[in-house]
Amino acid sequence: MFVLFQTVINTGKHYSFRKILNAPLPSCKCLLNRNISDAPKKFITFDEVVAQRRAEAQRSLVVQVNSESSFNELYGYCSRYASINGIHHYKNNGGEHFMLIEFASEDNLKDILRSCGSHHKDLDVMALQSPFLWFRAVANKKEKFTVPETQLINKDGTLPVNEDTLFEQLSHCKTVSDQIQVLYEHTMLNDLGVRLRYMVARQLETIMESLYANMAVRPFGSSVNGFGKMGCDLDLVLTNELTQEMTDPNKRLVYQEKKCEGGRSPWQRHMELMGELIELRVPGATRVQRILNARVPIVKYAHELSGVDCDLCYSNMSGVYMSELLWLYGSLDPRVRPLTFVIRRWAQTVGLTNPHPGRWITNFPLTLMVLFFLQQKTKDGFVLPPLKFMSKIATKDDIRIAEDYVNCTFVRDLNRLPPESYGQSQSNLQTLLLQFFEFYSQFDFQDKAISINEGAPVRKPNNLPLYIVNPIEQALNVSRNVSFEECERLKMEVRNAAWQLESCTEGDRTDDWGLLGLIEKRTTRGLKKLLRVGNSHRLVSVKDLFNEEDTSDKRLSKKSDKESAKVAQTVKVEKKEQKIKFKNTTIANEVYRIRRDKIV
Amino acid sequence: MFVLFQTVINTGKHYSFRKILNAPLPSCKCLLNRNISDAPKKFITFDEVVAQRRAEAQRSLVVQVNSESSFNELYGYCSRYASINGIHHYKNNGGEHFMLIEFASEDNLKDILRSCGSHHKDLDVMALQSPFLWFRAVANKKEKFTVPETQLINKDGTLPVNEDTLFEQLSHCKTVSDQIQVLYEHTMLNDLGVRLRYMVARQLETIMESLYANMAVRPFGSSVNGFGKMGCDLDLVLTNELTQEMTDPNKRLVYQEKKCEGGRSPWQRHMELMGELIELRVPGATRVQRILNARVPIVKYAHELSGVDCDLCYSNMSGVYMSELLWLYGSLDPRVRPLTFVIRRWAQTVGLTNPHPGRWITNFPLTLMVLFFLQQKTKDGFVLPPLKFMSKIATKDDIRIAEDYVNCTFVRDLNRLPPESYGQSQSNLQTLLLQFFEFYSQFDFQDKAISINEGAPVRKPNNLPLYIVNPIEQALNVSRNVSFEECERLKMEVRNAAWQLESCTEGDRTDDWGLLGLIEKRTTRGLKKLLRVGNSHRLVSVKDLFNEEDTSDKRLSKKSDKESAKVAQTVKVEKKEQKIKFKNTTIANEVYRIRRDKIV
Repeated sequence: MFVLFQTVINTGKHYSFRKILNAPLPSCKCLLNRNISDAPKKFITFDEVVAQRRAEAQRSLVVQVNSESSFNELYGYCSRYASINGIHHYKNNGGEHFMLIEFASEDNLKDILRSCGSHHKDLDVMALQSPFLWFRAVANKKEKFTVPETQLINKDGTLPVNEDTLFEQLSHCKTVSDQIQVLYEHTMLNDLGVRLRYMVARQLETIMESLYANMAVRPFGSSVNGFGKMGCDLDLVLTNELTQEMTDPNKRLVYQEKKCEGGRSPWQRHMELMGELIELRVPGATRVQRILNARVPIVKYAHELSGVDCDLCYSNMSGVYMSELLWLYGSLDPRVRPLTFVIRRWAQTVGLTNPHPGRWITNFPLTLMVLFFLQQKTKDGFVLPPLKFMSKIATKDDIRIAEDYVNCTFVRDLNRLPPESYGQSQSNLQTLLLQFFEFYSQFDFQDKAISINEGAPVRKPNNLPLYIVNPIEQALNVSRNVSFEECERLKMEVRNAAWQLESCTEGDRTDDWGLLGLIEKRTTRGLKKLLRVGNSHRLVSVKDLFNEEDTSDKRLSKKSDKESAKVAQTVKVEKKEQKIKFKNTTIANEVYRIRRDKIV
Repeated sequence: MFVLFQTVINTGKHYSFRKILNAPLPSCKCLLNRNISDAPKKFITFDEVVAQRRAEAQRSLVVQVNSESSFNELYGYCSRYASINGIHHYKNNGGEHFMLIEFASEDNLKDILRSCGSHHKDLDVMALQSPFLWFRAVANKKEKFTVPETQLINKDGTLPVNEDTLFEQLSHCKTVSDQIQVLYEHTMLNDLGVRLRYMVARQLETIMESLYANMAVRPFGSSVNGFGKMGCDLDLVLTNELTQEMTDPNKRLVYQEKKCEGGRSPWQRHMELMGELIELRVPGATRVQRILNARVPIVKYAHELSGVDCDLCYSNMSGVYMSELLWLYGSLDPRVRPLTFVIRRWAQTVGLTNPHPGRWITNFPLTLMVLFFLQQKTKDGFVLPPLKFMSKIATKDDIRIAEDYVNCTFVRDLNRLPPESYGQSQSNLQTLLLQFFEFYSQFDFQDKAISINEGAPVRKPNNLPLYIVNPIEQALNVSRNVSFEECERLKMEVRNAAWQLESCTEGDRTDDWGLLGLIEKRTTRGLKKLLRVGNSHRLVSVKDLFNEEDTSDKRLSKKSDKESAKVAQTVKVEKKEQKIKFKNTTIANEVYRIRRDKIV
């Protein structure tokens, strides 16, 4: 069971990024085929994953060290107290070194914590029992430790993949499918990233332990739904873990309650208290912001020791169940997550998505569009079942009711799905990507809504430009913010992408072969940057841009040598004659994007 | 050791008040003599008492019940889980019933807490692990419990003594010494009062457990110094319990600290957080006030479940050591506390002290005056040693340095005091009381300061009317607030009291025999009330008052029948011819007091 779990949730768990990058690539096709064809499949549930991750966090510590070479000493010191499962290394944004140690059991951890000291004697600085520690140097003597039996599991384990290396890898792939798989594996949130996020949640729990008898802090969103990227934000939710047993009326001794006084909502006050606690009592938490008057009050903070940005909210079980739903769909077929990753990266490249909030589409509806596409019956058959089917085969153990009586009931145990209900299509990732773009090139956005519940287009209940049904609260449109212009751009970009993918994958392997033409290195957001040089407060006119030779030369003259080289590369790409149509569109879009960014 | 402890700190521990009041009085003289003559004495230390009280609180719970008749059911229910040491009953100010249960061990308590439930399932009301619980009724079935092996230790155990009953008792005493002892035993903070105060401190500790690794909440002041009255306020202090072991530099794993951001003092922020925590997470806490800009920031709150008013401050170890010092002096001789109680009650009666802050003397300097008097060598010898002697024989274990490097070093183990260094005088309480008044009637307040460090009058370093050296910070005068007029009144009142005590204790047993003339029933603050009838916004002139017959008649005519009876009694007292001098002074003082109260 444990082995299975590791396989399913942590592809590449025991490899450091460097190892992956240096090692020969695993044959993606082989992986893909193996996963698709191995029947009967064995799935674990989301709850099992979460329970496993929480248990892992409960027997882990994060220790600040001098450098990765502190490994032997830390291992030697800790193994005197407790048995060690494994040690991971990472650096935070400030370049400080940390090791995440997983012990064999929670009891082991308690032994260690009991033996922990405090650095300061001042009354002003009070020690705090949290799982984030510091490994102090010994003043004079050098202690002898036995040589560790194991190695550091990973070094610099939270470092995002270097873009140059990634693009180098992508350019050497044999097929577009391989490219998609490589992109996914090198940008997805890795095992250490997940572990650290559960540690940050655990730290809040340890702080709250004596304040609330029944509260837990659970990660949700991209950190756990299987679609998270390296360095993604951490969404946390305070959940009420009151069990039937705790409210058993035969328990005659019950805790006195604290009645909340004053007019404000108790939850708002509790969130305010959480803000105070995070600011005053959570080591590593900085830049605490309280956004308490919003519909869903949140506390934002940056966790410096782990390098993770956190958003804490409360009482958002529908958010947790949504994460579970996405996780289930992602687990059902190994092509779902890689395909979503490449589409999200493409959307970012062409400027369909944008980190700021606005009138454009976001990653979540885009993910629903991918799932919806995979539910369609192509000539090869479909990949994913509609949600209504997953609700239909739910048992009474699957019943979940979130806040405001929102019904979140769907099958949790994927082993209960009949084999014929998913994975019918055997198409590879390249084919699916092209089909995705073609599907939405022809989709009737005018009259139809996208609904993963139905798995087929449904009539739009209103005239909003883009209608994507919220799978959990079906009366809501998750893309209600999207403007007509943005929807038009979406339609145009999927057509461009279909055209480009078809024309770029065959024939000679140019610089923008396969995916390379669809996605962009983040370090060379060339055009966008260029257009802004010396013009940061002025919009560039479309006319000027289309007068290509002049503008590109002008641009070059204003850049340093190093930057010029990159610009030259971009300009070279632009100049390829056979893509003049595509390019012009791109530039027009770029100008649009710049205008839009000004507004934000 | 345990038995000894109980004897020393809890006179009458195993008696309910009712029991004491209904039972024949213990022979006070006998008690007194036994305690004085039992040599060699065996004392326990303050730290031992505190440790014992804290341990007691850690294995105790306070459970809200339906009535005192819930005893059998509660006993039966709890004894299923854990072994019970004893159960006390009390009612809070709202008339709700509670039982304080002491279990045999802390482990027992943990078993019980694990089996506790939560009342509400709402997300808004979250259960809280504190030692204040509620005993829920069972809906339908009646459970059978075995008959308890023990009885309820006390019923209505925090009810202050009824004043009529007290005065009845006092009037039947054989001697003034007996009266003093009875007054002390019936108004001192009892065992249950102390237990509850430690429970309130413990509750804050359980709340803070996960927030601060090294903090304790300790009661100080009258709740623990041996001079507390029933219903007295509870002073609490946050103390840093960092041990040498915790800061041992060989402990290489240390907790990450939380650095406090922002300009305000970290302690002020921690106190603000405590205010929030008390308001939001402490069941029973109401009317929370944050007084954070004071020199010593405090959080005040009323604890409704225990009926105790609390003041929480931080980092006030000199306050804790002052409590210890008073406790030590009070433990050294059994006459110290009863004498202090009667003098404080007398000072309250004649209006020398006043619950409001102002230019008058307070209980603390008054207590120092009693201790100072007991250090004087009368013809019978002295009772208490000077503090300088207690510092002289201190060992290195007694070294205590409070905040701002204040030296609080004095002997903690009273067994180390040579027998000849205390209790030389064998005078009874009556003699001591008279001597107290006589001593201060003749004291040279003009030139001399009172210093329990020296045990003898010292030269005043300035011209303040009253100078009482702070025993711990000797550069400070604890009575620097006292005005010239108040000091004059003090001198006059001690002379009056000496005169009155001498004249009232001999001869016929009138209504104001012995103590009765010196202290007043709180329910019949006759004169003061009378003078205010219809005149609440106008001062009564001294001339009118001295025209006795008229004023008293006028007063009577304005009162209801029931009140008239009480007034008549007061007036009757006033009219006794042989005390005309005393009475006139009293009335003059009363007018003064009323004027002063107006100012407050």
